[in-house]
Amino acid sequence: MSQPSASSARTRLVREADRAVYDRGAAYKILDEGFICHVGFVVDGQPFVIPTGYGRVGDNLYIHGSAASRMLRRVNEGIAVCVTVTLLDGLVLARSIFNHSMNYRSVVILGAARAVTDPKEKLEALRLLSEHILPGRWVESRQPNEKELKATSVLRLPIEEFSAKVRQGPVVDDEEDYAFSTWAGVIPLEMVAGQPIDDERLMPGVRVPEYARGYTRKR
Amino acid sequence: MSQPSASSARTRLVREADRAVYDRGAAYKILDEGFICHVGFVVDGQPFVIPTGYGRVGDNLYIHGSAASRMLRRVNEGIAVCVTVTLLDGLVLARSIFNHSMNYRSVVILGAARAVTDPKEKLEALRLLSEHILPGRWVESRQPNEKELKATSVLRLPIEEFSAKVRQGPVVDDEEDYAFSTWAGVIPLEMVAGQPIDDERLMPGVRVPEYARGYTRKR
Repeated sequence: MSQPSASSARTRLVREADRAVYDRGAAYKILDEGFICHVGFVVDGQPFVIPTGYGRVGDNLYIHGSAASRMLRRVNEGIAVCVTVTLLDGLVLARSIFNHSMNYRSVVILGAARAVTDPKEKLEALRLLSEHILPGRWVESRQPNEKELKATSVLRLPIEEFSAKVRQGPVVDDEEDYAFSTWAGVIPLEMVAGQPIDDERLMPGVRVPEYARGYTRKR
Repeated sequence: MSQPSASSARTRLVREADRAVYDRGAAYKILDEGFICHVGFVVDGQPFVIPTGYGRVGDNLYIHGSAASRMLRRVNEGIAVCVTVTLLDGLVLARSIFNHSMNYRSVVILGAARAVTDPKEKLEALRLLSEHILPGRWVESRQPNEKELKATSVLRLPIEEFSAKVRQGPVVDDEEDYAFSTWAGVIPLEMVAGQPIDDERLMPGVRVPEYARGYTRKR
């Protein structure tokens, strides 16, 4: 992108003034808790938004693609993308309809994503992406062979132009509405992992590993 | 849009062949379980992807906007959007890295979103959006006044050109990998509501209403 600054006129447009976070550390904390992003790109003037997995490593985002997807092949050429990560934390039930809101944390990154093409670099990018989603899983799995590596695409997006939005905490009602006798408060929402489900064809004696128990993104 | 069909060349591009769902009923079930969408639109060739709340009513999606957002004002003019809803159901841990996947359900809608401008229609659209997210809340809240209604924007997107993608069920490994002795299986993921948190300034005797207890999107 032409503007390597953390916030630009373009990203400043994206948020409401009172909820903006421009701190890189705060944005990275959101990116590290999430692992699903929505990638936006344009084909013949039409926007497309596709969900996929990602991992952050330093100031880069590695985004999982598929060589089978014509869409992502276009992104490989280095066209403009917008990658958005959203974590939903709760419903905010105010006394007035107007002040109803949601607690959430989101990051919007603008940039040019490019395919990681060098096989060694791609393998390392996949490892980093895998470690982002489930640390410890990579070394326990059967590693990708040459054919599989070719059939997988990984995009790298430098995190240069970004903004984050955060809404947290309790209801904020208009002063005169506090006398309104409806219930008000927050319904917290969280992504929770259930008990791991064994595959039916496990080898004898294989047990659920520690890293797959009590899976959580809070760190 | 020029193509009012449920699936088109453009939406067919969006998914992998083995996971596509073109059934309107199946897509609506996904849209009804979710309430956060990612809206993609283009400004000067740059894609933007913004999370916001929505509700489905019949063959229309009502999308919550904000009159304060220059971005959404552009969408109000009726430019092309892509609205994507993604529900994450689990991590699929295969024996090979290559066959790792996620269980998810997503819907991609292409179309032209337009602002609901008539005050009566806007109020009704807001009511429908509210009922989609938390049925029962609307009538218990202080209704929007004229100023608030003006400061709120709601977009309507006809659900004409869409596709859905679904990945469910267990691990699928290559036949020769079943002898690999790593653990394989699924870690289920679900959005779960916690106990509602009372606002500190509730009127005396006000209790958490039934609709706010045990909040769930499964219906």
